[in-house]
Amino acid sequence: HGAMTTQTLDEAVESTAGAIASMEIRGAATIAAAAADALAAQAEASTASDPETFRRELRAAARRLHETRPTAVSLPNALRYVLRRMDGDRGGDVTDVDALRRNVVGAAQEFDDRLDRAQEELGKVGANRLRDGDVVMTHCHSTDVLSCVEAAVDQGKQLEAYVKETRPRNQGHITARRLRELGVPVTLIVDSAAHRYLPEADHVLVGADSIAADGSVINKIGTSGLAVSARELGTPIVVAAQTIKLHPETLTGHTVEIETRDEREVVDESTRGDIGDIEVANPAFDVTPPRYVDAIVTESGQFPPESIVTLMRELFGESADEPWKEPDERITH
Amino acid sequence: HGAMTTQTLDEAVESTAGAIASMEIRGAATIAAAAADALAAQAEASTASDPETFRRELRAAARRLHETRPTAVSLPNALRYVLRRMDGDRGGDVTDVDALRRNVVGAAQEFDDRLDRAQEELGKVGANRLRDGDVVMTHCHSTDVLSCVEAAVDQGKQLEAYVKETRPRNQGHITARRLRELGVPVTLIVDSAAHRYLPEADHVLVGADSIAADGSVINKIGTSGLAVSARELGTPIVVAAQTIKLHPETLTGHTVEIETRDEREVVDESTRGDIGDIEVANPAFDVTPPRYVDAIVTESGQFPPESIVTLMRELFGESADEPWKEPDERITH
Amino acid sequence: HGAMTTQTLDEAVESTAGAIASMEIRGAATIAAAAADALAAQAEASTASDPETFRRELRAAARRLHETRPTAVSLPNALRYVLRRMDGDRGGDVTDVDALRRNVVGAAQEFDDRLDRAQEELGKVGANRLRDGDVVMTHCHSTDVLSCVEAAVDQGKQLEAYVKETRPRNQGHITARRLRELGVPVTLIVDSAAHRYLPEADHVLVGADSIAADGSVINKIGTSGLAVSARELGTPIVVAAQTIKLHPETLTGHTVEIETRDEREVVDESTRGDIGDIEVANPAFDVTPPRYVDAIVTESGQFPPESIVTLMRELFGESADEPWKEPDERITH
Amino acid sequence: HGAMTTQTLDEAVESTAGAIASMEIRGAATIAAAAADALAAQAEASTASDPETFRRELRAAARRLHETRPTAVSLPNALRYVLRRMDGDRGGDVTDVDALRRNVVGAAQEFDDRLDRAQEELGKVGANRLRDGDVVMTHCHSTDVLSCVEAAVDQGKQLEAYVKETRPRNQGHITARRLRELGVPVTLIVDSAAHRYLPEADHVLVGADSIAADGSVINKIGTSGLAVSARELGTPIVVAAQTIKLHPETLTGHTVEIETRDEREVVDESTRGDIGDIEVANPAFDVTPPRYVDAIVTESGQFPPESIVTLMRELFGESADEPWKEPDERITH
Amino acid sequence: HGAMTTQTLDEAVESTAGAIASMEIRGAATIAAAAADALAAQAEASTASDPETFRRELRAAARRLHETRPTAVSLPNALRYVLRRMDGDRGGDVTDVDALRRNVVGAAQEFDDRLDRAQEELGKVGANRLRDGDVVMTHCHSTDVLSCVEAAVDQGKQLEAYVKETRPRNQGHITARRLRELGVPVTLIVDSAAHRYLPEADHVLVGADSIAADGSVINKIGTSGLAVSARELGTPIVVAAQTIKLHPETLTGHTVEIETRDEREVVDESTRGDIGDIEVANPAFDVTPPRYVDAIVTESGQFPPESIVTLMRELFGESADEPWKEPDERITH
Amino acid sequence: HGAMTTQTLDEAVESTAGAIASMEIRGAATIAAAAADALAAQAEASTASDPETFRRELRAAARRLHETRPTAVSLPNALRYVLRRMDGDRGGDVTDVDALRRNVVGAAQEFDDRLDRAQEELGKVGANRLRDGDVVMTHCHSTDVLSCVEAAVDQGKQLEAYVKETRPRNQGHITARRLRELGVPVTLIVDSAAHRYLPEADHVLVGADSIAADGSVINKIGTSGLAVSARELGTPIVVAAQTIKLHPETLTGHTVEIETRDEREVVDESTRGDIGDIEVANPAFDVTPPRYVDAIVTESGQFPPESIVTLMRELFGESADEPWKEPDERITH
Repeated sequence: HGAMTTQTLDEAVESTAGAIASMEIRGAATIAAAAADALAAQAEASTASDPETFRRELRAAARRLHETRPTAVSLPNALRYVLRRMDGDRGGDVTDVDALRRNVVGAAQEFDDRLDRAQEELGKVGANRLRDGDVVMTHCHSTDVLSCVEAAVDQGKQLEAYVKETRPRNQGHITARRLRELGVPVTLIVDSAAHRYLPEADHVLVGADSIAADGSVINKIGTSGLAVSARELGTPIVVAAQTIKLHPETLTGHTVEIETRDEREVVDESTRGDIGDIEVANPAFDVTPPRYVDAIVTESGQFPPESIVTLMRELFGESADEPWKEPDERITH
Repeated sequence: HGAMTTQTLDEAVESTAGAIASMEIRGAATIAAAAADALAAQAEASTASDPETFRRELRAAARRLHETRPTAVSLPNALRYVLRRMDGDRGGDVTDVDALRRNVVGAAQEFDDRLDRAQEELGKVGANRLRDGDVVMTHCHSTDVLSCVEAAVDQGKQLEAYVKETRPRNQGHITARRLRELGVPVTLIVDSAAHRYLPEADHVLVGADSIAADGSVINKIGTSGLAVSARELGTPIVVAAQTIKLHPETLTGHTVEIETRDEREVVDESTRGDIGDIEVANPAFDVTPPRYVDAIVTESGQFPPESIVTLMRELFGESADEPWKEPDERITH
Repeated sequence: HGAMTTQTLDEAVESTAGAIASMEIRGAATIAAAAADALAAQAEASTASDPETFRRELRAAARRLHETRPTAVSLPNALRYVLRRMDGDRGGDVTDVDALRRNVVGAAQEFDDRLDRAQEELGKVGANRLRDGDVVMTHCHSTDVLSCVEAAVDQGKQLEAYVKETRPRNQGHITARRLRELGVPVTLIVDSAAHRYLPEADHVLVGADSIAADGSVINKIGTSGLAVSARELGTPIVVAAQTIKLHPETLTGHTVEIETRDEREVVDESTRGDIGDIEVANPAFDVTPPRYVDAIVTESGQFPPESIVTLMRELFGESADEPWKEPDERITH
Repeated sequence: HGAMTTQTLDEAVESTAGAIASMEIRGAATIAAAAADALAAQAEASTASDPETFRRELRAAARRLHETRPTAVSLPNALRYVLRRMDGDRGGDVTDVDALRRNVVGAAQEFDDRLDRAQEELGKVGANRLRDGDVVMTHCHSTDVLSCVEAAVDQGKQLEAYVKETRPRNQGHITARRLRELGVPVTLIVDSAAHRYLPEADHVLVGADSIAADGSVINKIGTSGLAVSARELGTPIVVAAQTIKLHPETLTGHTVEIETRDEREVVDESTRGDIGDIEVANPAFDVTPPRYVDAIVTESGQFPPESIVTLMRELFGESADEPWKEPDERITH
Repeated sequence: HGAMTTQTLDEAVESTAGAIASMEIRGAATIAAAAADALAAQAEASTASDPETFRRELRAAARRLHETRPTAVSLPNALRYVLRRMDGDRGGDVTDVDALRRNVVGAAQEFDDRLDRAQEELGKVGANRLRDGDVVMTHCHSTDVLSCVEAAVDQGKQLEAYVKETRPRNQGHITARRLRELGVPVTLIVDSAAHRYLPEADHVLVGADSIAADGSVINKIGTSGLAVSARELGTPIVVAAQTIKLHPETLTGHTVEIETRDEREVVDESTRGDIGDIEVANPAFDVTPPRYVDAIVTESGQFPPESIVTLMRELFGESADEPWKEPDERITH
Repeated sequence: HGAMTTQTLDEAVESTAGAIASMEIRGAATIAAAAADALAAQAEASTASDPETFRRELRAAARRLHETRPTAVSLPNALRYVLRRMDGDRGGDVTDVDALRRNVVGAAQEFDDRLDRAQEELGKVGANRLRDGDVVMTHCHSTDVLSCVEAAVDQGKQLEAYVKETRPRNQGHITARRLRELGVPVTLIVDSAAHRYLPEADHVLVGADSIAADGSVINKIGTSGLAVSARELGTPIVVAAQTIKLHPETLTGHTVEIETRDEREVVDESTRGDIGDIEVANPAFDVTPPRYVDAIVTESGQFPPESIVTLMRELFGESADEPWKEPDERITH
């Protein structure tokens, strides 16, 4: 069955799928844009003569793209965004292949446009929360966070930053350099010093790996502890995340799989040898419940984390049925 | 004035003072024992013919010792312990030099005895709080903590441990090795992973650099954030600390000076160069308020942190007047 | 006026109304389905020649059904669901009786279909939140909760359960037996032991009698205290509730009436006689504010309790005007 | 450019703008109604022959009105409400000036109708939350709060009230008088006595100056402290606010400008002279985060504060682009 | 060794030991008084001619009594109280058997006197915290609690009570009857209804099985959850406990053994059979950390739970070495 | 009986009692010193020939003084301090009138000396908690607080202050002036603005009217709400209070009577007339539980509020029996 539908796939779909699989195309936004474009290419190249054939082709293309990175969050969001607009905004009985094609191409274009502007627009939203003279504390490195700070600097605001180094991979060093380049005075601290310096900070500002339907924020390990500390001290915590980070699978209760990384990031082999036979746990992310987060800043505006599910359903559909599957293969949940 | 009193100092006092100053004698317990012994030596060597001369000599000896490391916490505690027992337990009108000498020698001996047994006894107290099968989370390295775990293991209890690496100096590696040597299965984690793994832990178990009269615990940077997380999740946090860590100066409101360490512990010079012109803050310790601590375990038993002031006054005196000063030089507080 | 409209009611409406009133038809889902079916029967049987007459008939049928159990929550939800779709999804100027009839029959069918699948789908959503090896704590008996556990077991997950007996009626005994039948090891405890055993649980999992617009959960007495304890210890609390439990009247601030039950459930008459002249309070339910609940699991996916109002308005309408009333009889709120 | 478009403005727009600027027209609801009416007048008076000219005229009219009080919250809401319905509910390619005109006039009328009924309907919603015998605590003076109490009294409920005087302007005196006139027994207290008397209160009931997209409530200085106290003691806090208080600019992260008032409200000049050279800070409002608020009561029903963003977007649009600007002048955010 | 010392035991010691072991003597206060009296009898009967022999006899008597109920808390407290006063208040070099005898007899008498007055005095202390018109909530049955209420009633105060039934053994029924007999209006509730009715209560008033050095209160299962609820709602929680409930063993970190009772108290055998193969957990007590308790009321006055360790050390000694052991058999901790 | 003992009173006692009663002598410290001095005068003037007569005279003098202001807190503390030292530090069988006289005179002198130095010493303790550059927030006016700030300024620290006006009597104006005179920049705010400005403050610093055995702080109305806000935001709250503010009656559970003041302080008669028939509640003080206070600063050092009971018992006795009563008239509690 899969073999049959694969035959009809446009070359652009195949080459995009290959490039995503080989990580030639990487980064949440880049992958998402490529996937939307591939669907548009498939739509334009389609020679299907009836709507159902056309829809089947598009689903096959989406499946091909989806299977390259089944746990990524931005890739299925791109596919969802386009496929659920294939039959137009409301309703499902388009009888005309050209109309379907226009819808797909239009939705892909709309998705691309959103994506193009998303980080900049999100940055302005985040910047508007910051006041002149504010001090922010950051964790890990997030270009969405950076966009907020940059926009604030562009608005003429003077900011300062406490930057957590973010063990084990020290992405805080990147953040420190970028902030310095923006003219923001930086104080670099070890992760353990966060609670000590939080009283000096006006905001905690972090990114997100993904955001769940229950309002939980999945982000770099250490975010949850930082958020708990910030809440205890009354410091607002803001998550900057484009809507491609929303995770529609979680609507149906699915928890987000947390990547476990190589223990050598935590302790080098020689030290490991000295210590002897121990375990090393190195999860990449943790989960911060919504009650520790004040606002999620997206390119669609800011939201309390408890309301992000509404935006998620609006953009990517009310249920989590996988629209790239053939109807008879869909097993809900 | 100082010069005059110095003349009467016994050689043992001078050599001990020198060795403390040169850090030949180091470690909280070792310094404290040496200081008590030096006072006893001075008392035994004294040829004073009247009580007031004897007292002046002892105060001079104590001053000499105290000035070698004025911010240490165990050194003045040793001096306080002995000097406040010089005139016997209660009252101040001993008229007999021999009685004073006996008191000083006896108090120094008592102090030494306590110190000798302190870590082991503390360990038993801490061990009694642990149940077979418990999981502890540790921060930094503390021999008092280790003593608790060791005593629990000796009691036949099976324990497991999550060990935070404790940036920037990774003392967690030492703890990991020692616990492994005791047969305790260890999982090493980055400091940021503490909140993620706290639900697996039955206790947080940390040491103390010093403990203040208001019940605050001064300990390795990161302790306060860990304690906040543990309280939020209902995990008990226990501080293991011998009574020489109690800080009588804080009775009069003095805050404990927090050592700032070399920034190269946080970021090496080459990375620092890449990042550019930033600050690096590297405080050695932080302050955990008593409301985040369940119990302080000492060799005198366990105490809620809010009650430790009672033990402090019992052992080291009700006020913080410095007993090594001449009465007319004492400026209260 | 009522008399006149009653004349037009289909026999199916009358018999359904009778059976609901006599509690021959009982259980939230069964009542709701019967009510939707009765409206469909009325629509199909209608001989109305103009839309307004048809609408009046349907409203009269709905009124007849509604008045049988005015405080139930699922019954009016069924009526709302069908009546607000009578004129099609958007707009109100359907001019054709057949279209109205099709809409009513279709909506009733859709409602039935949702209901048929609801518990199973909800179960899958809830199950997705559970991980292999998890321990859940339950209160009272809820088939929605059971559905979550059953789905998790079907997914091959091993679960264990602490089951509160749930005085005064001991519905926990039913839950215990059902869980055991699913192969889930059960530990039965008195209600007072919940706080003691919560540290062993990974989730609190309860059902709901109804859910209010402000996100409050009305459920068996004892739920609120359990939720407070769980929050204090950081244990997530999940409410499993089909959308027929959403209570649209609460949109307008109405509080949910709490049933007071016979005191003999609490204390038998003989003991009561021994104790003497006291009051016995036996409320069936209590109210848990949303800040103590992590997620509400429905057949439409999971939601933070603070967002459930959005789903409520989507399914049952934005306002709480009672659609079974004649327009001129509606008194808002 | 501005000059050109101004020429086309109807006299009604000019006179309304003048009256708003001179504060002849004042009060959130009155301003909003006048602005909506002025747009309707402009639409009716328009002689535009093509849709784009008509739209430009309406935007110009809206700009003229908006510039009179750029920081008010109800005025732009009126303009947004009407302008975003100018092209009909969904879509933007109305090609007929008459349709646009009908839409504008209809939307203005709808807005007026909502406004007319809003306070009364809100009052009923709020009243439904109150039970017979309840005690409420109020801060400042709010006619929305009064409407809730009045509706409850109309429902036959006996209420009592603790009324905070609300320094510096003592608006509590007005509330006290109004409540007394409704037959509600009042106890007047200084603001500092709130925590003392909260255990006697069943609800805190306050109004709002405006409500932000992140669920924060901007209200009279003192609201945030009162809400923190109420949460600490478990007393529900309800905010009564018509939807014209929702602040769509905050969707894009904008914080609400807090008015600073004359220091003579706080301390008269003679006392000030006695005290000498000090600062006096007199902010009119403060910001209460959503986690301290149980419900926001509007004429559209009650909402958890975390969900109010959904209502805000529904009524006033998803983004905060200012619809009175010409498309090429819009700088998003 | 034990055999040898046993020879010297007075008949009164043997008969008291027998009666305690056979539970002929029962109840915390009765056991404690009997033990103190037996030591006095031993002292009076002693024919020892030198102090050390006398001391050995007394320790042997204490050992004999102690071994009858090694986990009781009041019994060792009686022994500690008397033995630590054997050598007079301060110091240990009494050289005169008669002085030792007088000390023992005097201490036993003092202990008895305290005990005689303890409950009544405690009752007055507790009563002083209650105001006329207050409502208390109780859990389980405690004569110390009853004494507080009785004293308040004697002071002319009108009280009301919510009485939790306290599953599984329904000791609340006893409390309900006793309170009713005192003229206190009682409302009996199931344990799960506590959170629902706490807003009506001014105090939670419970007894204690024992109290630990870290300020934890060991009391009937359900106390900890009740205390958490009460703290969340700001209702003060008071523990009424005579000082014989203080548990000096906990000074050295020992946790209090929690009795597990017969599962048939929870579920009768027939129901158990219906449910099938499940566990039933029936712990008698739970542990409430001090942060959930406002005051511990004793006959020596009221104390914050964090300070009770000071009273414990004052009454029963600073360490937990068991004074009935021979010095060379004492293994600290 | 009273008449008889009155005959023996020294003239100094009578004149002091008169001056206290007429409020010629006023202020907590002044009253306390006068009372101690009067007891010393009585002791010196006594012609009693046997100890019991002397003791009776002193008790009579104390009674005479006590009855002048039975609810003051410093007056009975002075009497307690002296009377409980009459028989020497430990024991009660002084058989020599001269020894008793010396003890009384000495204790009175000691009490006076403590009092003389108390505020200054307390100030130094409080100052030691403050760091250079800190911002404090104050409530009401307290010379103990002022002493802390003055000492900090003397130590060369730069401080700033937010001063709450403290309705209804605006004692904040006095604080503002005094702080300004010390060179501390002041920002005066209405009480309601405290929560808004707390994030700018490093400490809340308040005095106390009295302090209870359970660690509660009785202070100017508004203190409890301020403390709750400060705790919520993690701002430390320090209470500065000399030990004469400790309230030994509370050891036995007595609650502190809260003075209700004239309603005209809250609302003038004319405004009152306009408002109509309402209640005005004007309590002078409120009660802050110890969990909201970080430290109590006294002249004897700083203490966590949960430990202050230890200091109270040390200074004023373990029980609250009134030592001025004849033994046979003492009714405990």
